[in-house]
Amino acid sequence: MTPRIGITLGDPGGIGPEVVLKALSSVASLPEAEYVVFGSSQVVDAGLRALGIHLDILPWDPGKPPEKGRIRLRNIHHSADDIVPGSAAKGNGLASFSYFAEAIKAAQGGGIRAVVTAPISKTSWRLAGLEWRGHTEYLEEMYPDAVMTFWSERIRVALLSHHLPLREALNKVRKKPLLEFLRSLSRTLEKIKPGEFELAVAGLNPHAGEDGLLGAEEENEIRPAVREARAEGLRVTGPFPPDTVFLQSLGRPGRMVVALYHDQGLIAFKMEAFTDGVNVTLGAPFIRTSPDHGTAFDIAGKGAADPRSMVEAIKLAVDLSLPLL
Amino acid sequence: MTPRIGITLGDPGGIGPEVVLKALSSVASLPEAEYVVFGSSQVVDAGLRALGIHLDILPWDPGKPPEKGRIRLRNIHHSADDIVPGSAAKGNGLASFSYFAEAIKAAQGGGIRAVVTAPISKTSWRLAGLEWRGHTEYLEEMYPDAVMTFWSERIRVALLSHHLPLREALNKVRKKPLLEFLRSLSRTLEKIKPGEFELAVAGLNPHAGEDGLLGAEEENEIRPAVREARAEGLRVTGPFPPDTVFLQSLGRPGRMVVALYHDQGLIAFKMEAFTDGVNVTLGAPFIRTSPDHGTAFDIAGKGAADPRSMVEAIKLAVDLSLPLL
Repeated sequence: MTPRIGITLGDPGGIGPEVVLKALSSVASLPEAEYVVFGSSQVVDAGLRALGIHLDILPWDPGKPPEKGRIRLRNIHHSADDIVPGSAAKGNGLASFSYFAEAIKAAQGGGIRAVVTAPISKTSWRLAGLEWRGHTEYLEEMYPDAVMTFWSERIRVALLSHHLPLREALNKVRKKPLLEFLRSLSRTLEKIKPGEFELAVAGLNPHAGEDGLLGAEEENEIRPAVREARAEGLRVTGPFPPDTVFLQSLGRPGRMVVALYHDQGLIAFKMEAFTDGVNVTLGAPFIRTSPDHGTAFDIAGKGAADPRSMVEAIKLAVDLSLPLL
Repeated sequence: MTPRIGITLGDPGGIGPEVVLKALSSVASLPEAEYVVFGSSQVVDAGLRALGIHLDILPWDPGKPPEKGRIRLRNIHHSADDIVPGSAAKGNGLASFSYFAEAIKAAQGGGIRAVVTAPISKTSWRLAGLEWRGHTEYLEEMYPDAVMTFWSERIRVALLSHHLPLREALNKVRKKPLLEFLRSLSRTLEKIKPGEFELAVAGLNPHAGEDGLLGAEEENEIRPAVREARAEGLRVTGPFPPDTVFLQSLGRPGRMVVALYHDQGLIAFKMEAFTDGVNVTLGAPFIRTSPDHGTAFDIAGKGAADPRSMVEAIKLAVDLSLPLL
């Protein structure tokens, strides 16, 4: 069956529309799927003109079966006058939110299997009076078990917590929530990639606590959680020294590193995968992927944006959602 | 004036002697200096035999002026029977400690300008009943202002704290100790590399706290410390988002990133510089450098150890100690 993948344009003042259209301009080299763009036809047309490219885009008819290699548009109308190019703005926030919310609605209804989200601006969302900081927070409210993961060719990282002050994040490094996290992540990965992944849990303290000399969390919380997960038959290892576990996981396709706080995982991930990194939300009934970069307002409209991360986000969305069909 | 550089053999059961001898075997490609090996002649001779190489080594006579390209030995006698190859042991700890302590004594007396330390085993030191965890703790007791820094071709990182449980490390992220750290580090760098370095301070929380939304330390502690340092004329910037500051500092030779805790700095550093990383202790009256790897007992005695990090540690010791002559 041909998968149908939704792609949102992101903040229309940023590089989102550009990287989406660039990625779709070589649709023949993307995996076989039908791609549905969620956004305004005016923004799409302006983007195509600016890039000097032509794309064969038809309106989306959810009633029709998906067609391989076809690009469709779910037109979400808003006034072009409200869009501010190259900066955050209320209109940009309202627009990018409506693209995203419509795509999520379609995914919940089963019309699409995965949503690829171009970057939004948190400032635009705030100016628009939205109550969510971003895509992830919106999804988390809907799916409390959702897990933020990061994928690139050579490494995959899952975050136990993400947008929390570091002190608060430390309070989540407890046996019970960690064990629940390992169970939920294992369950999701088993669904989309059966038998493929081992979860390698990072330690919290320098050298993973060095047998309790440099902190107690490894012995009191992390090791017991790993032990219990293993007793339940889950493929979990660790805790490993945080400053080497990422390095030693490079190029091991069957491994996902569990980072215990935002920067532990993202310092490592961004050092490795700055141009091809993909953010993947797991634990919702659909897959959501997103390039690992922002709106880049400073280069928006100049045609200079690099679509590689978006291309990888689209490929991964297809790859990970196929088993859900 | 020809600098005189001390090199300790490290744990005689590990790869220390091997990487030292391999590095010295191409002494002509090292900077012009006299190199004084601190270790046992028996360990040196056994190492040379195992590697099948010859080195022209003379005993060290501290009274003589240093000779360019000359290798000397400060022979520290101990029984070869007490050394266990390929594992931690009490005898190994006593031996590696005596090499190190003698080298530091010579450096304090002014006989050598820099000490390059091959890796010791913390377990061997513990088995030997020594009260210090390792080289750094020994030096810190002597020089409380000592700062642990990490150097490679493309990045340099300084650690506000190192071997502390993460929770305790967070308690050091306060305006006063951070400001004192920035002053002391700036002073030292000005001595060895005048006018060369800007200190880029990482934030503590995700996205450097995002204006207080994700943690208060940036606004209450870090930013005020940076502001005051700048008011004093120091070249300090930040706080920057921790997950991108390292990446954005790659290939900027005039920059040192100040990491606020061990793994923040070392996750980034090791991802970038696994084979050529050098650990440099600053803030003592002499320079101490060390390759950024351990004793690697598992490959000891097999001739397979990579001396690149040791070569870089030697080069950097000469480079950084020249201005101290």
